[in-house]
Amino acid sequence: MSIGGNRLNVGVLGASGYTGAELLRLLVTHDGVNIAALTADRRAGQPIEAVFPHLGGLGLPTLVANDEVDWSAMDVAFCCLPHGTTQEIIAALPEHLKIVDLSADFRLRDIATYAEWYGHEHRAPALQSDAVYGLTEAYRDEIARARLVAAPGCYPTGALLPLIPLLEAGQIVIDEITIDAKSGTTGAGRAAKEGMLFSEVGEGFSAYGIAGHRHMPEMEQELSVAAGQPVTIGFTPHLVPMSRGILSTIYVRLRDGASADDLRATLDARYADEPFVRVLPAGFAPATQHVRGSNHCLIGVHADRRPGRAVLVSAIDNLTKGSSGQAVQDMNIMYGLDERRGLGQAPLFP
Amino acid sequence: MSIGGNRLNVGVLGASGYTGAELLRLLVTHDGVNIAALTADRRAGQPIEAVFPHLGGLGLPTLVANDEVDWSAMDVAFCCLPHGTTQEIIAALPEHLKIVDLSADFRLRDIATYAEWYGHEHRAPALQSDAVYGLTEAYRDEIARARLVAAPGCYPTGALLPLIPLLEAGQIVIDEITIDAKSGTTGAGRAAKEGMLFSEVGEGFSAYGIAGHRHMPEMEQELSVAAGQPVTIGFTPHLVPMSRGILSTIYVRLRDGASADDLRATLDARYADEPFVRVLPAGFAPATQHVRGSNHCLIGVHADRRPGRAVLVSAIDNLTKGSSGQAVQDMNIMYGLDERRGLGQAPLFP
Amino acid sequence: MSIGGNRLNVGVLGASGYTGAELLRLLVTHDGVNIAALTADRRAGQPIEAVFPHLGGLGLPTLVANDEVDWSAMDVAFCCLPHGTTQEIIAALPEHLKIVDLSADFRLRDIATYAEWYGHEHRAPALQSDAVYGLTEAYRDEIARARLVAAPGCYPTGALLPLIPLLEAGQIVIDEITIDAKSGTTGAGRAAKEGMLFSEVGEGFSAYGIAGHRHMPEMEQELSVAAGQPVTIGFTPHLVPMSRGILSTIYVRLRDGASADDLRATLDARYADEPFVRVLPAGFAPATQHVRGSNHCLIGVHADRRPGRAVLVSAIDNLTKGSSGQAVQDMNIMYGLDERRGLGQAPLFP
Amino acid sequence: MSIGGNRLNVGVLGASGYTGAELLRLLVTHDGVNIAALTADRRAGQPIEAVFPHLGGLGLPTLVANDEVDWSAMDVAFCCLPHGTTQEIIAALPEHLKIVDLSADFRLRDIATYAEWYGHEHRAPALQSDAVYGLTEAYRDEIARARLVAAPGCYPTGALLPLIPLLEAGQIVIDEITIDAKSGTTGAGRAAKEGMLFSEVGEGFSAYGIAGHRHMPEMEQELSVAAGQPVTIGFTPHLVPMSRGILSTIYVRLRDGASADDLRATLDARYADEPFVRVLPAGFAPATQHVRGSNHCLIGVHADRRPGRAVLVSAIDNLTKGSSGQAVQDMNIMYGLDERRGLGQAPLFP
Repeated sequence: MSIGGNRLNVGVLGASGYTGAELLRLLVTHDGVNIAALTADRRAGQPIEAVFPHLGGLGLPTLVANDEVDWSAMDVAFCCLPHGTTQEIIAALPEHLKIVDLSADFRLRDIATYAEWYGHEHRAPALQSDAVYGLTEAYRDEIARARLVAAPGCYPTGALLPLIPLLEAGQIVIDEITIDAKSGTTGAGRAAKEGMLFSEVGEGFSAYGIAGHRHMPEMEQELSVAAGQPVTIGFTPHLVPMSRGILSTIYVRLRDGASADDLRATLDARYADEPFVRVLPAGFAPATQHVRGSNHCLIGVHADRRPGRAVLVSAIDNLTKGSSGQAVQDMNIMYGLDERRGLGQAPLFP
Repeated sequence: MSIGGNRLNVGVLGASGYTGAELLRLLVTHDGVNIAALTADRRAGQPIEAVFPHLGGLGLPTLVANDEVDWSAMDVAFCCLPHGTTQEIIAALPEHLKIVDLSADFRLRDIATYAEWYGHEHRAPALQSDAVYGLTEAYRDEIARARLVAAPGCYPTGALLPLIPLLEAGQIVIDEITIDAKSGTTGAGRAAKEGMLFSEVGEGFSAYGIAGHRHMPEMEQELSVAAGQPVTIGFTPHLVPMSRGILSTIYVRLRDGASADDLRATLDARYADEPFVRVLPAGFAPATQHVRGSNHCLIGVHADRRPGRAVLVSAIDNLTKGSSGQAVQDMNIMYGLDERRGLGQAPLFP
Repeated sequence: MSIGGNRLNVGVLGASGYTGAELLRLLVTHDGVNIAALTADRRAGQPIEAVFPHLGGLGLPTLVANDEVDWSAMDVAFCCLPHGTTQEIIAALPEHLKIVDLSADFRLRDIATYAEWYGHEHRAPALQSDAVYGLTEAYRDEIARARLVAAPGCYPTGALLPLIPLLEAGQIVIDEITIDAKSGTTGAGRAAKEGMLFSEVGEGFSAYGIAGHRHMPEMEQELSVAAGQPVTIGFTPHLVPMSRGILSTIYVRLRDGASADDLRATLDARYADEPFVRVLPAGFAPATQHVRGSNHCLIGVHADRRPGRAVLVSAIDNLTKGSSGQAVQDMNIMYGLDERRGLGQAPLFP
Repeated sequence: MSIGGNRLNVGVLGASGYTGAELLRLLVTHDGVNIAALTADRRAGQPIEAVFPHLGGLGLPTLVANDEVDWSAMDVAFCCLPHGTTQEIIAALPEHLKIVDLSADFRLRDIATYAEWYGHEHRAPALQSDAVYGLTEAYRDEIARARLVAAPGCYPTGALLPLIPLLEAGQIVIDEITIDAKSGTTGAGRAAKEGMLFSEVGEGFSAYGIAGHRHMPEMEQELSVAAGQPVTIGFTPHLVPMSRGILSTIYVRLRDGASADDLRATLDARYADEPFVRVLPAGFAPATQHVRGSNHCLIGVHADRRPGRAVLVSAIDNLTKGSSGQAVQDMNIMYGLDERRGLGQAPLFP
C-alpha cells in the first residue's frame, strides 16, 4: 500500500457512465487520493471532457482502454462497468489492489440466485464469496477488512437503511413489507434508449419492473440476514421526471404493540453517530431535493391511520449514497481514512 | 331546460383557477354548450386572457363577480371555487339550475365526517343529502337524475375506479388496501405558495400529508359502500415534478384464492363498455403521460411476488378525469347527452 | 377524389415518430377523414399502442410496412419519414394521391442548396419543382392547387410568420435579422441519442448548431422571397428542458423611421382574419405553454431600448403549427375544407 | 481582524432566501470561516432546517433577527437581503466589518441611474461611492482593498465576462451588442408568486422584461467602462424550466477585420490563468448543466454565417458564479486568501 504521507493511487474502470462521473466529482475533492487512470474502451484516447464536459479543466487523465492500465502503481480500483462484464475483469486484476465494484456482480452471495436473476452462471464464484456487501452502516467492520467490496444498488440502499434496524429489533412483521420506490432517470444509466428520452419521460410518471426488478433479491438477501429468517418483499419501482434521487415509501406492520414512535426511537439510536444517516423528528417527511449531490440518507417515520401499521420514508441521491458516494465511503474505511473524506459537500438545493 | 336544438347555457363560478381553466378548455370543444358566464371575484372586469393567456381569442365572456351573474337564462353552473366557500354560494343558486360542484363540499355524505376533516360544521346540510357523488362509472344512473353532483377528488377517482369492482366482487381483503399515489403539481391549485415554486419542486420528489390527507374519508366512504362494510385504507400522496397526472400504485391482498388474472378479468368485464376506462393487458403498466389532457383512466393489474397479493396501477390526468373532465362527463349525463361530448381529445403525448 | 359526403381516406407513412403521433392525435378529431393506413417499417404488424400507448383504444389500423399499403383507395398521404428517405418513396406514389410531406425533402426550391445542406444530390428533382411550401398563411392559394405540399420546418414557421409581412412592407433592414430560437426536445425526434436523454437535458439549457442548422437555408429562401432580394440571417437554436414548444426571439433594425408600433400594426393587419395567428397587444410577450398542443402562433412586438430597433417574439408548438398541425391545415385547404377542421383544440395549460 | 491561524467570523443577513442558502452550502466547505450568525427577520428563533431542510445537521446557528446580531466579534457580513432594504442596514453596520452585498443596492455608481431604475433615491449615497463592483476577474485589485463589495447581478456576470475583454481590445462594435439571456427560476428568488409556480413554469419557455430589466444599467455601466465610452445594449431575459443556470447568447459585430478566432484568442489570453473562467475550443458551445453548482463560467466563441459578426455563448450557475459563489470568491480576495477556497466543488452533472 503506497499511502503514508502520500495519496492513494486510484483507477476508475468505466469512467464514461454516470457512476463514473459521480465518482470523479467526489474524488476531485478528496485530498487523500490521486486519480491516476480512467478507462472507457470505446472512448480510449479521448480527454474526459469529450465524454463529460463538466469535468474539463480539472487535470484528470486521458481515457484509456481497460487493458491499457498499468496497475502496478495503483492502490484502488473502482469498477463502474455494466453488470455482467465486471466479473472477469475483476478476477484478472492483480492481488495487491483493493477493489470497490459498483456493478451488481458481487452483491448476491448465493450463486444460484445470481444465475436466476442475471441469466447466466457467475464467472468468478471464488471472488463472490470473498466480496463484502458495501452497505457501510451495516458492514463497516467487514468493509475495513475487505479486499473486494460490492457497493449496494441504489434501491437497496434506500430501503435497507430504514428496515434493517427494525428487523433486527423484531419490531416489524417480516412478510408484510411493501416498498414503493421512486427513482430519477440516472438510475437507468447513460445508454441511449428511447424510453429514457426527455420527450418520453418529461411531464410523466410511471411504474416499471413490477415484482420483477433485479434489486429485489439483493434486498431480500440483506433483510433476511437482519431478520434471521427468509424475507420476501413487495417492491415496485417508479420513474420520476428528475435526474437524481430515490424516495422509498415503505409500508410495514408492527409487532407486539410497537408504535411508529418506537420505530423512530430504534432508528434514532442506531444512527445517532452516523455521519450520513439522519432520522427526522416526528411529523417531518424527507424529500429527494434535500439530499441532492450529497451522501446523506434521510429517514422519516409515520404512523399509519390503520392501527398497528407504520410508513417509513427514506430519501437518498441514487448516484451518491446510492452508488458512488457510498463507494468512496467504503474505500475510506478500507484504508482507515475518515469515512467522510471526499464527501463533505452539502446538498445542492435548489 | 332550454336545450332542444339549442345549446345549454353554462356558467362557471371560479374560472381563474386550474379546474376552471381545464373546464373551459374542454367546453370550447363541446358543441352542445354555450359558455355564458365566467366569474372570478378578484379579477372581475378582466378578460379571461388576463388570467389565462392561453384562453385568449376564443370568444369567451369577460370575468364578473360571483354575484353579478344573471342565472335566469342559465341551465348549468359549474362551481370551481375553493373548498369551504362553495356551500353557501350553491345554496343560494336558483332552483332551476343544475349544478356540478368541483370542490370537496358535497362529497362526504356524513356531516360529522365533513366537520372532522374540514374543521367546521357544514353550511348547507340539506343540499348535502341531495348531492350525488359524481364518479361516473359508479353512479351513472343517480347522476342522470341529480340536480347537484359533487365531482370526486382527483386521488379518489384514480383509486376508486380499480378498487370498487374488486370490493364488490369480494376478491380483495378490505383491511389491507394500501394506496401509494403520486400527483403532479396542479393538484395543489394555483395559489402562490413557497412550497409549490418551480425552484422548490423541480428535480425533486417528496411525500406529504402522510395518513392525514383530506381525500382519505372520501375514498373510505366509497370503498365502504362497495364492500358493504367499513373500510380503512392506507394512503400516502406524493408530489411529482410535473404539472398534470396522478399515478396510483395500490397494494391488495387477495381473497379466496383469487389471482391477479382474476382481478383483471373482473375489471375487464366491468369496464368493457366504458368509453373512458381502459384495462391494460397483462404485463402492461400505465403511465400518466399516456392520459395527459384526456378523460381516460388506464388500469394495470400485476401479480406481486408474494403469493396472495396483487398490485394495481392506475393513471389519470388529475385535471381531466380527476376533475373537470369528469365534471363535463357528468353534465352530459345529467342532460341526456352522449357522455363523450366535449371529451373527444386524444391524450397529448409527448 | 373520393370525398362528397364521404371521408377522405388518409395514409400516414412513418407513424412511429413524434410527427406521426401528433398527426394521429389531431386527425382522430377530424370528422372529414378516415385514417386508413399507418406505416412503420420496423414495427410492421404491431398495433399502434405498441409504439404509442396513448393512442390505444382509438380504433386505429395496425402498422404495416411502407410498401404494403394499397394506395388505390386512398386520397391523401402524409409522409412523416426521416429527411432523405422520403424523396424516392414519394416519387413512387400513384398520381391520384395528394401528399403532405413533413420532412425537409421538398422545402428547398434550389436543388444545389439542397445538396449543399443535406449532403447528397436530390433524388426527385422533378417533384421538387412542383412542391409548394406549406406555410399556410403565406401560400394559401398555391396550397389549394397543389398536389405536393412540403410542410415547413418548426423553426422556420416560428420565424417566418412574424418576419415575412415586415419584409414585404419594407419596414426592417434585411441584413440585420438575428433569430435566437429555443426549442423543446421533440424537435430532435424519437431516435435514441445520448444527448437527448432526460438525464442529459433536464435542469439544463444549451445552444447547438450555431450558424449551421439546416433550417437556415429554408428560412433564408422564404425571407428572400418576401424581401425581393437575398437575405442572410443570424440564427442560433437552443434546447429547452421541455418536450414541446418553440420560442423565437428576433432582433431587427427598423427602416425609415418605423417604430415597434408600426410593425405591430402591419402584423395586426396581416393576421386579423387568420384563425391561428394572434398578434398580442403592446406589452404582452408570448410563452410556449400558452400554445401547447394547439395550432396557434402568438406574436409579440417590443421596442428595443436602442432607438431604431425592435424585438419580435413568437411562440408555437413545434409539433402542431410547427409540423403536424400545419400539415392538417394544409390538407384541409388542398381539399377545400374549412382549414380549422381537426385543429379545434384549445391549448393545454397548465 | 480576527484571522491568523483563526477562522473569519461570518454573519449572513437574510439567510432564508436562495442566495443565503447557496452561500451556506459553499461556506460549510470553507475551512477558513466560521459561520457565526444567520438572520431572517420573519423566521427568527427557528433552526435553519425549518427554512432549508437540506441544511440540517450541519451545526449551523439558529436564525435571529437582523438587529439581534452582536457584530463586535464578527469579521465579515454577507448581505442577502432584498433590493432596496439593504442600504440602510449596511450603513448601520460597524466600521470594522467587511461587507459583501449580494443585492443590487451598491452596484450602480451613478445615484441618478439608481433612482431611475429602482424608483427611489439612494439611501446611503456615501457608501455607494466606496463600494467596489465585485466582478472578480475585472476588479480583483480593487476588491482586495475594498471594505464594501457589491456582488454583481447574475445576468451581468454572464454577459460581462465574455464582453469586457473584447471591448477593451476594441474588437467589437459598441452599439451592436445584443444579449439574449436565459435563466433558471431561482433568479426570481423564493418569494411565492403565481407566475413562478411549477404548474406555470413547467413545460414552457417565455421572455419577460423585454428592454426593461433592471440588470441593464448595471451591464451598460461596466461595458461603458470597458469601451471607454457609453454603451447601450439590447437585452432580453427569458425564463427556462430549470432551477439553476444562465446561458447568455450574445450577438456582436466585429471591428477592423477581426474574426471569431481573434475574439477567442483575446479571451483565451485574458482568462488563461483564471481559476473559474474557461474559454472553450472552437466548435464547442457551453451548457448550463456543465456548471451546475460550481463557480465556473464557460465561454464559447462562434463565427456567424454573416461575415463580420460573431456569436458568444456563456454559461454560469446563477446562484454560484452569478451570486453567492462570486461573493465568496470576493471575500477570499478581501482577506488575502486563496480565492478558490470554499469553491472547490466540481459541477453536479447529471
